Amino acid sequence: MAALSADTLSEVTRAIDLAGVFANAVLGGALAARERLDVVGLVTLAVISGTGGGLIRDTLLQRGTPVALTDYAYLLTALAGAGVAFLIKVEGSAWRRPLLFVDALALGFWAVAGAQKTLESGLGWLPAVLLGLITAVGGGVVRDVLIRRVPVIFGGTLYAGAALVASIVVVVCTRLGQPTLGVAAGVLVGAGLRLLSIQFHWTLPQG
Amino acid sequence: MAALSADTLSEVTRAIDLAGVFANAVLGGALAARERLDVVGLVTLAVISGTGGGLIRDTLLQRGTPVALTDYAYLLTALAGAGVAFLIKVEGSAWRRPLLFVDALALGFWAVAGAQKTLESGLGWLPAVLLGLITAVGGGVVRDVLIRRVPVIFGGTLYAGAALVASIVVVVCTRLGQPTLGVAAGVLVGAGLRLLSIQFHWTLPQG
Amino acid sequence: MAALSADTLSEVTRAIDLAGVFANAVLGGALAARERLDVVGLVTLAVISGTGGGLIRDTLLQRGTPVALTDYAYLLTALAGAGVAFLIKVEGSAWRRPLLFVDALALGFWAVAGAQKTLESGLGWLPAVLLGLITAVGGGVVRDVLIRRVPVIFGGTLYAGAALVASIVVVVCTRLGQPTLGVAAGVLVGAGLRLLSIQFHWTLPQG
Repeated sequence: MAALSADTLSEVTRAIDLAGVFANAVLGGALAARERLDVVGLVTLAVISGTGGGLIRDTLLQRGTPVALTDYAYLLTALAGAGVAFLIKVEGSAWRRPLLFVDALALGFWAVAGAQKTLESGLGWLPAVLLGLITAVGGGVVRDVLIRRVPVIFGGTLYAGAALVASIVVVVCTRLGQPTLGVAAGVLVGAGLRLLSIQFHWTLPQG
Repeated sequence: MAALSADTLSEVTRAIDLAGVFANAVLGGALAARERLDVVGLVTLAVISGTGGGLIRDTLLQRGTPVALTDYAYLLTALAGAGVAFLIKVEGSAWRRPLLFVDALALGFWAVAGAQKTLESGLGWLPAVLLGLITAVGGGVVRDVLIRRVPVIFGGTLYAGAALVASIVVVVCTRLGQPTLGVAAGVLVGAGLRLLSIQFHWTLPQG
Repeated sequence: MAALSADTLSEVTRAIDLAGVFANAVLGGALAARERLDVVGLVTLAVISGTGGGLIRDTLLQRGTPVALTDYAYLLTALAGAGVAFLIKVEGSAWRRPLLFVDALALGFWAVAGAQKTLESGLGWLPAVLLGLITAVGGGVVRDVLIRRVPVIFGGTLYAGAALVASIVVVVCTRLGQPTLGVAAGVLVGAGLRLLSIQFHWTLPQG
């Protein structure tokens, strides 16, 4: 696989980040609809789901105003996701599979984008893994707390675990001089682990 | 209406911000008293209600230490609000109306202060609207999560919606070269919408 | 008591901060085990308990990336605490006393570290007291919100109150030119008040 230049990698990371924003905004909006929130509540929950993880990541990185506030594409993408969730009734058993699939992809996208961005900021492997994880699950956790659900990270299947492994894959590949491979492998491993864990009811040992 | 100078506008924004701090601290303290929290719990909840939204706004803006930590007026005002809530039993039906009125005013104050400050920081209209909303509802949401209530933004009436419209009014007026008018109109529209929505049981369509 | 140099004091603050990280990570992990979370959930809760308060403090201070992300000792110490909680079943009545003791010490450690660090950042006494309190209780509050417990600060005994007094002791001693004494006295007073309040069922008047 030909290595991407740093600029292109940054562009790829942004595109991947935005894909995660859209997917999570749709998911957050769908959840809001199921909870019978009104249209402002739906948009709020969609925007939080879509941008919360990145906002926490950027705030912790302290490298200036979070990208979700300076790059209009983020909020507009989140609003588009909210619009989709508002217009299309994303409910019922027919939607279960596609939603899980999108959710799993978004998890991989964000773990990759978070870990990648942390490394680009000059921080080491350990914070990169942590911020990959936080980016991937942060928005969903805030969303779940607000509607008083059990946070998705404690839901029993591989969720935080999948994001953790995806972040580690990105960090290891980047250290081995293969950042492009890391991005692709991270998304695949993160989304794959999540989907397999649902399909086969994988759980981790209890503490 | 004569336009205010930038410095005066900044002073007006601060005064309005502080009025919101006081009102929300009283409200948070009153809620703590109703929940039978002890005096430290009451002060904690009052300070969170009174400064939480601004702390989140300033942390996201990343323009230095949040004003609530550097300008003593903020914490002292929040403590004064806690004191009022501790000394006066803000309970019973006689208090319902004045509390709702103060709450509505505070909502307008903070939406205006948040949107105004974001524009002053050089960010665009979309983050200004978002941070106006977050300033207005952030402290109340954190307060509600801590005492495990349904967050006020999902309460069914125009709350986040009123803050959203107030923020938009500020941004539009400022863009039209009328920041002073924007401040006044934003507070009026935000507080007015909130009060009218309670009076007439206005609700928004569900998602 | 001989005064420590500024550098040594900074080192002492770091050691005290890390002791708090370890203690709270063990406590968070033990709680996760009691809640039957899986191993990733346990590690997550331990890391949040161990680093959450400091992350909130450093993010609010806006003096660069939080120390928990730049100084590896923090995350590694939190992970070590998670490991202890995973390997040793920290449950049953035999563990109740030691856990309360460690918890009380950690409360004092963090109130001291938070107040001390805020003063070192050049902020005044009021934010120092507030950030001492936030450092001491922040991680526990986020942990409790995530597992949907009543936040520890509203638990009825002197918890936030003990942290508050410890922070005030540090600030007063430092103002009197006795920072070293302040560190020692703050830890003793914070931990002591907490333990005494449990032993003698001290409660504060309700609001």
